[in-house]
Amino acid sequence: MGALALQLEPGHPCVACDKVDGMNAHSPDLDPVVLSQLTSLRKSIDNVDAALIHLLAERFKFTQAVGQLKAEHNLPPSDPDREKRQVERLRTLAVEANLDPEFAEKWFNFVVEQVIKHHVEIAREN
Amino acid sequence: MGALALQLEPGHPCVACDKVDGMNAHSPDLDPVVLSQLTSLRKSIDNVDAALIHLLAERFKFTQAVGQLKAEHNLPPSDPDREKRQVERLRTLAVEANLDPEFAEKWFNFVVEQVIKHHVEIAREN
Repeated sequence: MGALALQLEPGHPCVACDKVDGMNAHSPDLDPVVLSQLTSLRKSIDNVDAALIHLLAERFKFTQAVGQLKAEHNLPPSDPDREKRQVERLRTLAVEANLDPEFAEKWFNFVVEQVIKHHVEIAREN
Repeated sequence: MGALALQLEPGHPCVACDKVDGMNAHSPDLDPVVLSQLTSLRKSIDNVDAALIHLLAERFKFTQAVGQLKAEHNLPPSDPDREKRQVERLRTLAVEANLDPEFAEKWFNFVVEQVIKHHVEIAREN
């Protein structure tokens, strides 16, 4: 497997360039049918990513409001019991959705780490 | 700020327990109005999290299909140029949605790291 197989060669006049929305995910040897399938999948990934970013923005609006409320009422930024229940729930939802529950948990911990940082910052500002 | 202020005291007969869906995010001193606001925000966070988990599951379905396609056609699991463009796009979307673009980038890198692991596994199996 060549490490550069997906790179566009310098000066390569590949007519597929426009079709793949500026992506270099092709080589001169790549079957146009495969390229078309790859492009379609990538467009779906891009659509899902846009939705994920907007949902994450919405999630942070809510967690910022929680942080503000906690700071105003002198409550600690993190709540281990609540987080434990959230992890259990998300692992169950992940299994139902055929998503690796280990990944779901790691993903959640990554997001919560950011949220707690924000809560600490808000508490400091109050 | 007491580190245990959000913990339910052992044997504490708080009638709010049922109202907060089993959450311990209250203390005997917490104003019921504040508790109600906190509970409402947390329910919204739980709703958004369920949506995020399902969207992540959908994203992984697409990336698994990409991994399968790449493995079948001997293409490398990662594509740095594609990822660079994705990061730029997601940072722009994040700014528009009032989400910290640094967080969006870190979040994306975390997800892609998992995806590449899956692609490598699929390639090994083929």
